Amino acid sequence: MTAYEIILKKRSGEELTEPEIRFMVGGFLDGGVADYQMSALLMAVFFAGMSDTETVTLTRTMLESGAVHDLSGVTGPKVDKHSTGGVGDKLSLVIAPVAAACGVRVPMISGRALGHTGGTLDKLESIPGLRTDLSGEEFVRVVDGVGMGIVGQSPEVVPADRKMYALRDVTATIECVPLIVGSILSKKLAAGLDALVLDVKVGRGAFMREMERARELARRLIDTAGRLGLPARALVTDMESPLGVAVGNALEVVEAVSVLKGEGPDDVRETSLELSAAMIELAGLAEGHAGALEKAGGALSDGSALAVFLRFVEAQGGDPEAVTRDDGLPRAPVRLDVPSAASGIVEGVDALEVGLVSVALGAGRRTVEDAVDPAVGVEILTPVGASVNRGDVLAVVHARTRDDAEAVGGRLGDAFRIGDGGGAAAGRRVLETIG
Amino acid sequence: MTAYEIILKKRSGEELTEPEIRFMVGGFLDGGVADYQMSALLMAVFFAGMSDTETVTLTRTMLESGAVHDLSGVTGPKVDKHSTGGVGDKLSLVIAPVAAACGVRVPMISGRALGHTGGTLDKLESIPGLRTDLSGEEFVRVVDGVGMGIVGQSPEVVPADRKMYALRDVTATIECVPLIVGSILSKKLAAGLDALVLDVKVGRGAFMREMERARELARRLIDTAGRLGLPARALVTDMESPLGVAVGNALEVVEAVSVLKGEGPDDVRETSLELSAAMIELAGLAEGHAGALEKAGGALSDGSALAVFLRFVEAQGGDPEAVTRDDGLPRAPVRLDVPSAASGIVEGVDALEVGLVSVALGAGRRTVEDAVDPAVGVEILTPVGASVNRGDVLAVVHARTRDDAEAVGGRLGDAFRIGDGGGAAAGRRVLETIG
Repeated sequence: MTAYEIILKKRSGEELTEPEIRFMVGGFLDGGVADYQMSALLMAVFFAGMSDTETVTLTRTMLESGAVHDLSGVTGPKVDKHSTGGVGDKLSLVIAPVAAACGVRVPMISGRALGHTGGTLDKLESIPGLRTDLSGEEFVRVVDGVGMGIVGQSPEVVPADRKMYALRDVTATIECVPLIVGSILSKKLAAGLDALVLDVKVGRGAFMREMERARELARRLIDTAGRLGLPARALVTDMESPLGVAVGNALEVVEAVSVLKGEGPDDVRETSLELSAAMIELAGLAEGHAGALEKAGGALSDGSALAVFLRFVEAQGGDPEAVTRDDGLPRAPVRLDVPSAASGIVEGVDALEVGLVSVALGAGRRTVEDAVDPAVGVEILTPVGASVNRGDVLAVVHARTRDDAEAVGGRLGDAFRIGDGGGAAAGRRVLETIG
Repeated sequence: MTAYEIILKKRSGEELTEPEIRFMVGGFLDGGVADYQMSALLMAVFFAGMSDTETVTLTRTMLESGAVHDLSGVTGPKVDKHSTGGVGDKLSLVIAPVAAACGVRVPMISGRALGHTGGTLDKLESIPGLRTDLSGEEFVRVVDGVGMGIVGQSPEVVPADRKMYALRDVTATIECVPLIVGSILSKKLAAGLDALVLDVKVGRGAFMREMERARELARRLIDTAGRLGLPARALVTDMESPLGVAVGNALEVVEAVSVLKGEGPDDVRETSLELSAAMIELAGLAEGHAGALEKAGGALSDGSALAVFLRFVEAQGGDPEAVTRDDGLPRAPVRLDVPSAASGIVEGVDALEVGLVSVALGAGRRTVEDAVDPAVGVEILTPVGASVNRGDVLAVVHARTRDDAEAVGGRLGDAFRIGDGGGAAAGRRVLETIG
């Protein structure tokens, strides 16, 4: 068996066997398969695809390439949520405490901002003192004690994914369903979960632009997880416009906390409740969707989810007071109002553009080495459906300098589509539930 | 402009611009584009293809990556022939002297055996003393003085092809029409030819198995050469069965010389004359195909082509006596007869199998580092169309050891398809002429 023969086979549209997939992934890690051979195989997979069986084998092989988290010390049903990434997506900060308050154990492994999308770890680290680099023992203690914990991926877990993702990132093979499935599920399986809820975003601000492709990814994720013994459910959710009204690290924490207090934007609250309910139902803690949704809503209205979140912040070294106090989180020194050039109804807010503006301000990363500014970002005052008059403030830019703010003001204004309301697209965020 | 963006563009099926192609090829040579990015691009090209314009740009960019041969010292019309590679393909050794005897100057740049196909340089080097590593000045002197010369590719010429071919060879992207076109034509253009004749092989023993694909390659070669100012003609020729009856380095030299003497197998003589005639016609040394064919035939019958070949051997340091003397070339110590297991008509001889048997005996290379044994090979006694009785000798194995011979005897016998003659496929080798 040689790398050449395996690439040729996939290039010819044939199905790879388990030994062949193991040869490539193992060889790529130990150096027996060159980077340029792996990148050729990945591009061949992009075009020729992978069967369900191949995808399962790839996922398992990646999982077995490294250590797994030992969460046997956590009592209770362990369920995580994974999002494919969006703009203004602070849902984890609401969902995890809501589910935990209902009895789910949430050992959440999160990522950092990259491209135009934000990352939960960066958002959390805007809370003074909060650490996301817990040891395995600390993580188990936090999840078991508080009901939830959020940490970054350990380098010992799924090394194949780290190396393959880095290669895909520079060879234009990120947007490939079987490779996405392998990457997501190998890491989730390594966390020893009892079930998994997936938030597959679709639209301008998501990696998947079309419903059909998002649905395919959701189906493949559910199917592959199921074949690997991990019950899963996917919600396909709308990412045409940013989630909620805040985009930026500390700004999003503030919004998440307001939702935990029973306030905040409707779309964030409703989407969080739907996803939390799926976790509660899969954990076996409620009968049916309606019961689970009611439980989740109760955790918001009785304050128990907020209490879990504050305990979580403290358990991971953060200052819970900073989260509840008005000026406890980093604030940008400059604020610039972006006025509307027209009167009418906001028919759309371009999530991709808002994400890119946020990155330009310093809230995200252009490369993995970039530092993230916790304070900067965008606050939307007129979400989709709002009525505006010419000159009304559409959004506020939170920037480090006036130059930074002015550099993006026009672009941010242009992200708002204002019309007579006939083209308004405000609707439910949850478009479909699969699994 | 980044390698990532260019790969993404090709992956998405878009046409690359000249600056983009130059960025990738130039960057690949100077290290600015990583091997793993080039291999991803090459695989994307395999699937997404390249337009005629892209192919022309790729070819020109590769050509301009290095030095060109200075053949301005050669007087007369310079025409070369290129074959896509086959089994028993000793045609260059006949064609070049025939064309040269008719006034064409033939500065032939040839290759070595790789895979199941032979290489002209290896065949020539079975002649004691003959060198194929002439300096540029020596090459000009030989071609101008004798009318023909045959050398290997200089490392200074088209370095982009050397590096790209090496990468394609280990990433399964050899069989890709625009990449083949760029590789072949960049090298031929670097030789400063006035015209080019292409022998595009099709069938079991060729890289192109199907007529439609061979025809496409021929058309793309002709079209791209024309756009780059090089008049070209392609003959699509049959490679289902080996050309002639000898496969192996010295064995093929002997067969070529017998054809130059007016003997030898019909298919080798006729195909050589057709290809030579195309060279003579493109060189403007005859009016029309019939006239060119007559001239070529005359060079065989009057002995002038043989005389050119012997002068060529001497000019490149070889011993012309060794070529004409019966025992002048290396001979294998062991000969093994392969008997027929059935009676009937030989309907086919599998060129690929015969090529692989020949490689197994040591006549070819499994890797570029392998040394080639000049003496070993296969001699076919019953070509397609021959009538055989059970027990008749189908072929003779020429081997270094008896073990070597016995290891391939059965396989070689199985390469002969013997039936009632209804499925006999002996026909014209030249299937189509394009351009």
